[in-house]
Amino acid sequence: MSEQGGTQDPSDQLRKDENTRQSGGMWRKAITRRDVLKLAGIGGAGLLLGSLGTGGILQAGSAPVKREAQDLAGSGVVDFYGAHQAGIATPPQDFVCFAAFDLTVDAVAQVRKLFQQWTEAAAVMTSGGMIGSSNDNPNLPPSDTGEAAELVPSGLTITFGVGPSLFDARYGLSAKKPDTFADLPAFSGDELRPEWTGGDIGIQVCANDLQVAFHAIRNLARIARGKAVLRWTQEGFQRSSHSDKAGATPRNLMGFKDGTVNPNVHDPKTMDEVVWAQADDGVPWMAGGSYMVVRRVRIRVEVWDRSTLQDQEATFGRHRRSGAPLGSRDEFDQVDLNAKDENGNPLIPMNAHVRLARGDNSVHLLRRSYSYSSGLDRTTGQLDAGLLFISYQRDIAKQFIPVQKRLASDKLNEYIVHNGSAVFACFPGVREGGYIGDTLL
Amino acid sequence: MSEQGGTQDPSDQLRKDENTRQSGGMWRKAITRRDVLKLAGIGGAGLLLGSLGTGGILQAGSAPVKREAQDLAGSGVVDFYGAHQAGIATPPQDFVCFAAFDLTVDAVAQVRKLFQQWTEAAAVMTSGGMIGSSNDNPNLPPSDTGEAAELVPSGLTITFGVGPSLFDARYGLSAKKPDTFADLPAFSGDELRPEWTGGDIGIQVCANDLQVAFHAIRNLARIARGKAVLRWTQEGFQRSSHSDKAGATPRNLMGFKDGTVNPNVHDPKTMDEVVWAQADDGVPWMAGGSYMVVRRVRIRVEVWDRSTLQDQEATFGRHRRSGAPLGSRDEFDQVDLNAKDENGNPLIPMNAHVRLARGDNSVHLLRRSYSYSSGLDRTTGQLDAGLLFISYQRDIAKQFIPVQKRLASDKLNEYIVHNGSAVFACFPGVREGGYIGDTLL
Repeated sequence: MSEQGGTQDPSDQLRKDENTRQSGGMWRKAITRRDVLKLAGIGGAGLLLGSLGTGGILQAGSAPVKREAQDLAGSGVVDFYGAHQAGIATPPQDFVCFAAFDLTVDAVAQVRKLFQQWTEAAAVMTSGGMIGSSNDNPNLPPSDTGEAAELVPSGLTITFGVGPSLFDARYGLSAKKPDTFADLPAFSGDELRPEWTGGDIGIQVCANDLQVAFHAIRNLARIARGKAVLRWTQEGFQRSSHSDKAGATPRNLMGFKDGTVNPNVHDPKTMDEVVWAQADDGVPWMAGGSYMVVRRVRIRVEVWDRSTLQDQEATFGRHRRSGAPLGSRDEFDQVDLNAKDENGNPLIPMNAHVRLARGDNSVHLLRRSYSYSSGLDRTTGQLDAGLLFISYQRDIAKQFIPVQKRLASDKLNEYIVHNGSAVFACFPGVREGGYIGDTLL
Repeated sequence: MSEQGGTQDPSDQLRKDENTRQSGGMWRKAITRRDVLKLAGIGGAGLLLGSLGTGGILQAGSAPVKREAQDLAGSGVVDFYGAHQAGIATPPQDFVCFAAFDLTVDAVAQVRKLFQQWTEAAAVMTSGGMIGSSNDNPNLPPSDTGEAAELVPSGLTITFGVGPSLFDARYGLSAKKPDTFADLPAFSGDELRPEWTGGDIGIQVCANDLQVAFHAIRNLARIARGKAVLRWTQEGFQRSSHSDKAGATPRNLMGFKDGTVNPNVHDPKTMDEVVWAQADDGVPWMAGGSYMVVRRVRIRVEVWDRSTLQDQEATFGRHRRSGAPLGSRDEFDQVDLNAKDENGNPLIPMNAHVRLARGDNSVHLLRRSYSYSSGLDRTTGQLDAGLLFISYQRDIAKQFIPVQKRLASDKLNEYIVHNGSAVFACFPGVREGGYIGDTLL
């Protein structure tokens, strides 16, 4: 595919020289990105790169690869090891590749082995490295599929969870299933389809480069061969962090700001209350983990686009442009559900999304959703686009379910349909030497 | 979708102040991004933004929005008007949203009207503006769907073409069909599927922000309501230009560099020979335009990933790591098809992709391809991922077809299948006051 024709470009020589200087040297010396990063941690990136002449990989004039986890300029490393898994409290990156797997093995020892292999691969990939050491053996398949070579780590996070089906009879784990952890009940208006529902294992991969995220899912699937098969995948995006450096709240595909109200991930007390399963919650192996809900929410784009601005704003209970609650001026104004207009009618309609989602404001969860666009729906010829809703919470039964039940009368339901659904218990973080899932497996 | 729970974030007040200062003011004064850009062209962005207090939209400390067309840092404007349509010689942006439409109208006047409306919308969107002026009328649907509000122009290009079917009996245009312009012949190994094939109209939208690109396709489809319907769409990506600022050749999903040999878009003589239809080519309305081929090429990812490095390199005829031709060291080394190993066998196998694609090196075309990833193939459970091959040429019959015929014995065919195909005659560029397609319609 890379060769159909082409004249000799006069700038080829220039590009060739550039290439030799910048990346050719690295390849010939077989210095992997991982090596560069390891060494950079010791000696300082500038010094290292100067001495090896591999400046190209870190981009001339750029900051060192290793950055703060909260640096979402896009290229940095988010630490894989820690008390919690990355990708939950991590500020959302630009892209998600979500994958659900079903196990095909018989014994829990094989499940354990899979998570050990995945842990090793995830630690390497999130640090910007390539998998394995046999890249140069011509008689073997390359140990890394290669499409992320030369790319910076891009804030890659890989977050692992297990579904309720893992606790069936197969692996002897049923006694360890958290009491209330189960597939979600049917909600009003659900039109769930098996191709976007369920899974023994769920993996949320996020990065600021879609190719880096795809590479991670693909290599995890490859490692799983013979142990697990992909059940469903869904990619998602939000506006590029490069397009909107002011950090405004991203807009969903309905044109409204999405995520205005979210727990403060920097407040440990809030996170312990809302997001992290606690040691005294009755499930010791989940302490420090979090329960994830994934819903594939299709937007009836064509119908929405024909509704009036007034209807749209009444649906959300917010102004489209500013994101402010109806009757207020600024996005972050408090939502006053009791406010009335001059006729004594509620400013925010009784079936507005903001009112029903909020309820008495006693229940919170951490949302980490992405827009998706998946071509045309073959049956209708309409756009299959919407929201890959992802939330993390300490207890799904006490948090997501009551909120979603309230939304049964949500005016938004005229314009959306939930066609995929899954829940996963996302393990606590792992320390070097351990593996994801070691508290359970 | 934007409201499920959430504690009061202590940083809300800070964000609120920030928001008011940065974008709230703009909304309330109803100054569109388009206005900002227009004014910026007169008075200088810095001055303007200072005086109106709308600094947020251009991001504090960022460069002015209006940049050189070749600036692929990502945020700039690529000129919509010009001798040629943008998106052909334009250095490839990070994302493509490709859409094929079928017309549903009876008369050529309605086709003309559609292209006039599209031209106006495309000019606005590529300059970073929002469509229409009725955004604030609560009794109408918003004239712009809104999800690209606050986002920078992101190098957006929108490139329009028409398929052979436009020249059937419907619109009285059959006499104007270029002689050799037709659906592609069947090629060895094709498994074309109707859902990714053909179309009266093809539109290639590219941008460095996927949300900006999606927004453009969606609004073009919306404008077309009652005149044309979407036939198929496909999104694609390459590694982010932010991930790889050194400008290395991007890798495809087979892990190989793709696009090493391409005509020099900065050389007008080469472009006139290879890409731009000429006034004396027999089709006056296409002078300055170009013919596009689109092929949806699925990679049998799982099979490829099990093949050895040696097999993979023999398939392409290049080294995976460096991109160099087999037997050479550097990516941009000349391909020597006559080179032999110590036993007298060709270093580059007779069925290697590089050998067959190149042939006698007399035929060239401009490739502008993207990787795609579209979830799982429902029938096989395998990844539906590959390459959205796009090429531009002066004459498809003399350029793409002979190359693709040579590829019948390509070893690469073991690992790929073409499942979508379309050709479009992309009009010459348009000057302000004209509309895309005015030379034909």
